[in-house]
Amino acid sequence: MTPTVKAILDKYEGTSAAVKGNLSRILMQGRLGGTGKLIILPVDQGFEHGPARSFAVNPAAYDPHYHYQLAVDAGLSAYAAPLGPLEAGADSFAGQMPTILKLNSSNSWATTIDQAVTGSVKDAVRLGCAAIGFTIYPGADKIFDMIEEIRALREEAEAAGLATVIWSYPRGGDLSKDGELALDVGAYAAYMAAGLGAHIIKTKLPTDHIEQKDAVAAYKDGDWSTMAKRVAHVRQASFAGRRINVFSGGAAKGTDAVYQDARDIRDGGGNGSIIGRNTFQRPRDEALAMLDKLVKIYKNEE
Amino acid sequence: MTPTVKAILDKYEGTSAAVKGNLSRILMQGRLGGTGKLIILPVDQGFEHGPARSFAVNPAAYDPHYHYQLAVDAGLSAYAAPLGPLEAGADSFAGQMPTILKLNSSNSWATTIDQAVTGSVKDAVRLGCAAIGFTIYPGADKIFDMIEEIRALREEAEAAGLATVIWSYPRGGDLSKDGELALDVGAYAAYMAAGLGAHIIKTKLPTDHIEQKDAVAAYKDGDWSTMAKRVAHVRQASFAGRRINVFSGGAAKGTDAVYQDARDIRDGGGNGSIIGRNTFQRPRDEALAMLDKLVKIYKNEE
Amino acid sequence: MTPTVKAILDKYEGTSAAVKGNLSRILMQGRLGGTGKLIILPVDQGFEHGPARSFAVNPAAYDPHYHYQLAVDAGLSAYAAPLGPLEAGADSFAGQMPTILKLNSSNSWATTIDQAVTGSVKDAVRLGCAAIGFTIYPGADKIFDMIEEIRALREEAEAAGLATVIWSYPRGGDLSKDGELALDVGAYAAYMAAGLGAHIIKTKLPTDHIEQKDAVAAYKDGDWSTMAKRVAHVRQASFAGRRINVFSGGAAKGTDAVYQDARDIRDGGGNGSIIGRNTFQRPRDEALAMLDKLVKIYKNEE
Amino acid sequence: MTPTVKAILDKYEGTSAAVKGNLSRILMQGRLGGTGKLIILPVDQGFEHGPARSFAVNPAAYDPHYHYQLAVDAGLSAYAAPLGPLEAGADSFAGQMPTILKLNSSNSWATTIDQAVTGSVKDAVRLGCAAIGFTIYPGADKIFDMIEEIRALREEAEAAGLATVIWSYPRGGDLSKDGELALDVGAYAAYMAAGLGAHIIKTKLPTDHIEQKDAVAAYKDGDWSTMAKRVAHVRQASFAGRRINVFSGGAAKGTDAVYQDARDIRDGGGNGSIIGRNTFQRPRDEALAMLDKLVKIYKNEE
Amino acid sequence: MTPTVKAILDKYEGTSAAVKGNLSRILMQGRLGGTGKLIILPVDQGFEHGPARSFAVNPAAYDPHYHYQLAVDAGLSAYAAPLGPLEAGADSFAGQMPTILKLNSSNSWATTIDQAVTGSVKDAVRLGCAAIGFTIYPGADKIFDMIEEIRALREEAEAAGLATVIWSYPRGGDLSKDGELALDVGAYAAYMAAGLGAHIIKTKLPTDHIEQKDAVAAYKDGDWSTMAKRVAHVRQASFAGRRINVFSGGAAKGTDAVYQDARDIRDGGGNGSIIGRNTFQRPRDEALAMLDKLVKIYKNEE
Repeated sequence: MTPTVKAILDKYEGTSAAVKGNLSRILMQGRLGGTGKLIILPVDQGFEHGPARSFAVNPAAYDPHYHYQLAVDAGLSAYAAPLGPLEAGADSFAGQMPTILKLNSSNSWATTIDQAVTGSVKDAVRLGCAAIGFTIYPGADKIFDMIEEIRALREEAEAAGLATVIWSYPRGGDLSKDGELALDVGAYAAYMAAGLGAHIIKTKLPTDHIEQKDAVAAYKDGDWSTMAKRVAHVRQASFAGRRINVFSGGAAKGTDAVYQDARDIRDGGGNGSIIGRNTFQRPRDEALAMLDKLVKIYKNEE
Repeated sequence: MTPTVKAILDKYEGTSAAVKGNLSRILMQGRLGGTGKLIILPVDQGFEHGPARSFAVNPAAYDPHYHYQLAVDAGLSAYAAPLGPLEAGADSFAGQMPTILKLNSSNSWATTIDQAVTGSVKDAVRLGCAAIGFTIYPGADKIFDMIEEIRALREEAEAAGLATVIWSYPRGGDLSKDGELALDVGAYAAYMAAGLGAHIIKTKLPTDHIEQKDAVAAYKDGDWSTMAKRVAHVRQASFAGRRINVFSGGAAKGTDAVYQDARDIRDGGGNGSIIGRNTFQRPRDEALAMLDKLVKIYKNEE
Repeated sequence: MTPTVKAILDKYEGTSAAVKGNLSRILMQGRLGGTGKLIILPVDQGFEHGPARSFAVNPAAYDPHYHYQLAVDAGLSAYAAPLGPLEAGADSFAGQMPTILKLNSSNSWATTIDQAVTGSVKDAVRLGCAAIGFTIYPGADKIFDMIEEIRALREEAEAAGLATVIWSYPRGGDLSKDGELALDVGAYAAYMAAGLGAHIIKTKLPTDHIEQKDAVAAYKDGDWSTMAKRVAHVRQASFAGRRINVFSGGAAKGTDAVYQDARDIRDGGGNGSIIGRNTFQRPRDEALAMLDKLVKIYKNEE
Repeated sequence: MTPTVKAILDKYEGTSAAVKGNLSRILMQGRLGGTGKLIILPVDQGFEHGPARSFAVNPAAYDPHYHYQLAVDAGLSAYAAPLGPLEAGADSFAGQMPTILKLNSSNSWATTIDQAVTGSVKDAVRLGCAAIGFTIYPGADKIFDMIEEIRALREEAEAAGLATVIWSYPRGGDLSKDGELALDVGAYAAYMAAGLGAHIIKTKLPTDHIEQKDAVAAYKDGDWSTMAKRVAHVRQASFAGRRINVFSGGAAKGTDAVYQDARDIRDGGGNGSIIGRNTFQRPRDEALAMLDKLVKIYKNEE
Repeated sequence: MTPTVKAILDKYEGTSAAVKGNLSRILMQGRLGGTGKLIILPVDQGFEHGPARSFAVNPAAYDPHYHYQLAVDAGLSAYAAPLGPLEAGADSFAGQMPTILKLNSSNSWATTIDQAVTGSVKDAVRLGCAAIGFTIYPGADKIFDMIEEIRALREEAEAAGLATVIWSYPRGGDLSKDGELALDVGAYAAYMAAGLGAHIIKTKLPTDHIEQKDAVAAYKDGDWSTMAKRVAHVRQASFAGRRINVFSGGAAKGTDAVYQDARDIRDGGGNGSIIGRNTFQRPRDEALAMLDKLVKIYKNEE
């Protein structure tokens, strides 16, 4: 283990050696292993948006093995997916890639702002996962229920020695659409995930909008003009950098925009990217080339 | 076990030998045993539509033994029913036919789009079943509850060595009536079942309608003019064919239409039919003759 | 055990020897013991309608012992009541009469069409009962909840070796008032109870009304002009006679009507009566005389 | 144990020796010990109405010890209170007075007609209680939930050897305000408590109003002109006197009215009083004098 | 242990030695150790109001270690926080400061007056806490649910030997905004917490407003003109001083106001302050100076 990774793990106090061991499996994996940076491949879009919207553009991606293999070949840090897809490659790729079992999912036809629990900690243990994943929607009418679900799952994961990754995506309730990406909202979302005991926090890259009137005063003297500074603030909100922060890439977009995101994350002190559609919705060669460049960015080589 | 069946089972990764053993019981059963094709007889219509609407046309079918015997005599792959009817022949037909305990059911008077859980995994174990069955209604307001029910039951079934069959029938919420059978919706429904860990996925045969605006782009370049192509797409959505897909026959109809369905399923690479009303709502001799022909179709003999 | 009772028990497949033993306790009890016919005394009206409306007309019936003694003296098959009244005679009448603990009850002031669970399988075991009893209201908005309650209780009862009696009373939702007693509805209600694993099914005697439009075709060729034929159809719907069917007597009425009901049940192949208000709302002597005649009717002596 | 108490206990059939033992602890306690009569001091008003409304008139009563001491000094039969107050004197008064842990409570600001569960059977065991107490509101929209709560707690109490006291207070739903105290309603409320397995039933003293139209016929020939006759009817509704009935005193009022209540209860065959505000909202000396007279009334000395 | 602390502990009857031991850990800690007075540092504002609103004014406070260190350096009695922040310093500060795991939290975007459970008693045990903390909102529509949550957690904490601290903050339902701080309401809130078994009760400092019409009579003869008298009444309502009462400081304000609050609490017999924003929203030196003075006030040195 590198000193960088050791320093990150040391910040996880009150945490069992087993959980730290699983965090180190992720942090020591692949081409970014040991750097304290990480890239996670998440493939929950099939469940969230449907298979055709997710994979038709690159039909090889209908096969769950495609994603495992992409993560392995690109030298990524971990692969995250719901039960079905994760299970579908569990034997073929056992030991090759740390996996994160995403325990809840929504879908395109949901009539409430909520997610359904689709897997269990027992499943994660059985499939040899390093961590569980869970989405909360801060602001939604159902947020208290979602929090109580992850509370129980986090406790059970902890007892099983698994790490917990929380996707914290503000939505619903009184939040405006702009507000979902606001800086104050994103920082609060990261804090909430940290407060709930997340070991790895996934949020979206924030804009410089401030959503909450009560928070304007707290932000008025800061300089939030660059994404790197906003990323740094999200880190600050995540227990002054004591937690691992990864940022999602959002919908598929041009590679330059993807690279800029990564440089911003890196320059703001973020730990890395969780990048799905921007990988598997490209031809495999292009995706590998893009991921190669992302790795180099995080290694300060680009 | 034939190489064909072995190849199918090998795709079930992260799955216990016990569950694979039960899948092989179904795949090695009857006249289609070993071919990788299967025909399942489901008799949940008594509960769903009432006994007279289901059985008056062929009164012998009021007796639960009738269906067991029909499945045995026709050389089918499995028999699926709710607790009561399954239990009613459990001793007489023990060991003669793999059974699937359908664990939830709706009825004609339901005032919500949902089903009630009517049996348990313990019941399935006690009755010597090979699998549990469960219906979800993607799109319905209650879909998250239904998902969480099957999540728990699937986990318990897995721990008991039983396979899981999911009936995935989009209904309710914002879906249009045409949308229930739309190609994009059917493929999504199959993917959802796969995502929830189903070993056998039951959907309806899809039309060429595309329901979701967001999905139009994904389908616009495809050729969906034949049912076989649409079946192949549902297979693709089921983890690129890593899961067993069976298709329901719907309401009773002419034998030619039934045979055409089977040929379409076969030609699209589907694994088989789950066919209820079209069997037991015919006189036994006609039903046996029809099933004989269906078997031959799946064996590429017709 | 008589061959008649043995033949009935043999139809309960997938059922433990313990449950069959408890069914035989009921079927071998009293003056109808061994005939395959049975009369059950149910006293849940105190809870459902209040004590004065139930017992003021015959004040001796305020005492729970009264009913136990009546069942014993009349040579009935079983006594059914909620926890309190059953417990109140449990020691005095231990071993004298098979008892059925009614596990849910409504009351006159209920503001929803539902019942509250008032006892447990553990209570039934502790009180030495032969069976549990439970009411479902098919058609009601809460039917799925009621089904899930009895599902769990039935499983627990089965594990404890107790039989399950389901009172299946269609009510609420979209059902019309006439529909509650319609033939198609009653047959469906019986089927639902059978589907849920009931060993003894209690329904009301049906009229010749057909409630469901979709079911008209199924009934149009039948002759439903006599109650006996309608009873026979309910038997048919109960797995072609594989389950025990008893019919309720309804509100207190003239003895001739009560006798006619019994003859109709007998002639239609039904197994017997569950008769409460018509017994305890009469003076004891009259009730005993009436029950004596009912026994004779079921023995084909009247 | 006196023959009178033995006779009362003998009516509790199907009840463990442990529960009977705890009932006898109450019935053999204090100055009424052995008479079959009892006076219970309940102090849940602090929680239900707030401390100042309950105790400001007699500030010594803010101290939970005050009530324990009052019950001891007055030679009462039992002391009932929610968790906090009961716990606050548990060591000082251990063994001096049978206690009843009130397991649910409402409060002045409740926005639904319901109560919250505030303690557990484990608490009652830990505090050495003789019984648990629980309020139901027959008629309320939540009555089925309340019944299911006490059902579970009663079963657990029974398994722990504790007796169950039910406060049965009709309220809400379609009941009129007058109806809450109506004779038919009070008798039904007592029956419901008995039906749920209560060992001691607490109701209010009924008026001669008949609330339910359907019950008018049952009452029309009775003479309900005196409170004693109405008390006797409530006794009748409580399994013909097989259960212990105590009656609440209601809000603080003049001593003559309190004495008259007790004479009516006694003359109607009731077992005693549960009297809170009329004791602790008087100066201690007055309260002791009043309780002394109540004891004498129940001993037929006044 | 000092006689003062021993006298306080002796009032906790029916309470295990383990719980008393944890209360004594708090009461014997820091500069107020042994005096029966205490100052608790609570840091749940990050979760409740968001990180920037809480910490931007003093950015060092983004780091959870900041608060632990502040509590240690100021010689406080205990540190209270939700799971995430508490865990983040659990190893560094193990054994240096008694901790209270706050088990529920709301947030700025909540659309109901309620809180989500975010931690467990197992977490508290694992992190070496002395107590659990929990907020109830008396008056809110969800109060019964909140009570039932703390009921279960309190029982589990008791079994684990941990003390229970209840934040009792009337809000919602029919309470007016002024009413939230009314004297009658605050006293009732304290009583409710005591009734639920709280060992330490946290309420707000009350105004002299009387909210409840029904309570006016109970207060009309009292002198509530000073805060000390109102504090004394809250103590009286807390089982006549048998429970530890701490009062919250509210939003950040001038030091003179903070000191006056403490003198009022002391003079009214209250046990101390729970003071968050007024500490960590000041520069560390100012906060330490202020806390030094507060300690002296509670020691009667100022």
